[in-house]
Amino acid sequence: MRILGIDPGLTRCGFGVIDGDRSRRCSLVDVGVFRTPADLDTPRRLVLLEREIEAKLREHRPDVVAVEQVFAQHNSPTVMGTAQAAGIAMLVGARNGLPVQLHTPSEVKAAVTGSGRADKQQVGTMVARILGLAEMPRPADAADAVALAVCHLWRSGIVVGDAVPNRWQQAIQDHAGNRRTTWKEGGR
Amino acid sequence: MRILGIDPGLTRCGFGVIDGDRSRRCSLVDVGVFRTPADLDTPRRLVLLEREIEAKLREHRPDVVAVEQVFAQHNSPTVMGTAQAAGIAMLVGARNGLPVQLHTPSEVKAAVTGSGRADKQQVGTMVARILGLAEMPRPADAADAVALAVCHLWRSGIVVGDAVPNRWQQAIQDHAGNRRTTWKEGGR
Repeated sequence: MRILGIDPGLTRCGFGVIDGDRSRRCSLVDVGVFRTPADLDTPRRLVLLEREIEAKLREHRPDVVAVEQVFAQHNSPTVMGTAQAAGIAMLVGARNGLPVQLHTPSEVKAAVTGSGRADKQQVGTMVARILGLAEMPRPADAADAVALAVCHLWRSGIVVGDAVPNRWQQAIQDHAGNRRTTWKEGGR
Repeated sequence: MRILGIDPGLTRCGFGVIDGDRSRRCSLVDVGVFRTPADLDTPRRLVLLEREIEAKLREHRPDVVAVEQVFAQHNSPTVMGTAQAAGIAMLVGARNGLPVQLHTPSEVKAAVTGSGRADKQQVGTMVARILGLAEMPRPADAADAVALAVCHLWRSGIVVGDAVPNRWQQAIQDHAGNRRTTWKEGGR
């Protein structure tokens, strides 16, 4: 399964493409950010973003699009633009007949670090570890988009009694300073 | 000048098309609402909305698109969907090479009723009066979209010393129960 993750934004919109299989192993296909000029009006920035996402979708032909869910808890000046960027990602995915799934920031953090309150550094570190990268993708929006794709792969595959993915468990242990956990390593 | 006004929403997205001239007189071309099924996921609702707006744009070929600005002050469950619907309207307008202008709800209310805190009934009443309609467009989202288009026409034409549009002034007087105002009727 190929997943396109989108961390929406107008100034920087992160994208990450991964391939994952049923064992939940995954590999990185592409990662980066789409940028639109801050001095352009929002409607035109949305048009540019639409083109970028559409092009990336045609290039990699993912099976599913995962988009980070935007909340309006804080009325920051950018939250509406972020929500609209997310809307464009959802639109482009659905228009191409793909399933589009939203995941909250907490879900993404919990999926890759084990904690819904992890910081960006921790998320980036785990993304690099899970995908076997020499260093974390930069900027953070790019790493977040990859984390989103990993989150989608793992959440969509969750079934009762299924094994915790080896690589994830290994990564979590590494992250915890190789401290032994009491998790059962069932299914392996 | 032909203006397409959009009062964004997923369940009901109001649209209103008016023709207006430099004297700020205006006439109604089309009004109504686009609806998308509440049991469909947001990405697919956005796709349907995109099609509807695109079709309306091709039908009437407006010179400009006016969209109501969405604020995140209240974290209602619908505010993100409304923001994303607004984003789709902005996208479609800009993608067709049209200027897209946002107006706040207060600006719209002030433009057609004289008060930024007018209620929906008052806005609807004034929309009917300004455009010479037998009754106000329904539902309220449709009337709001027309009000937005009128707001755009009048705000975009504001120049110092220019006349208050006759019809608007007449309508405001009617609305105030024919009470005489002290406004100077300059320029007429």
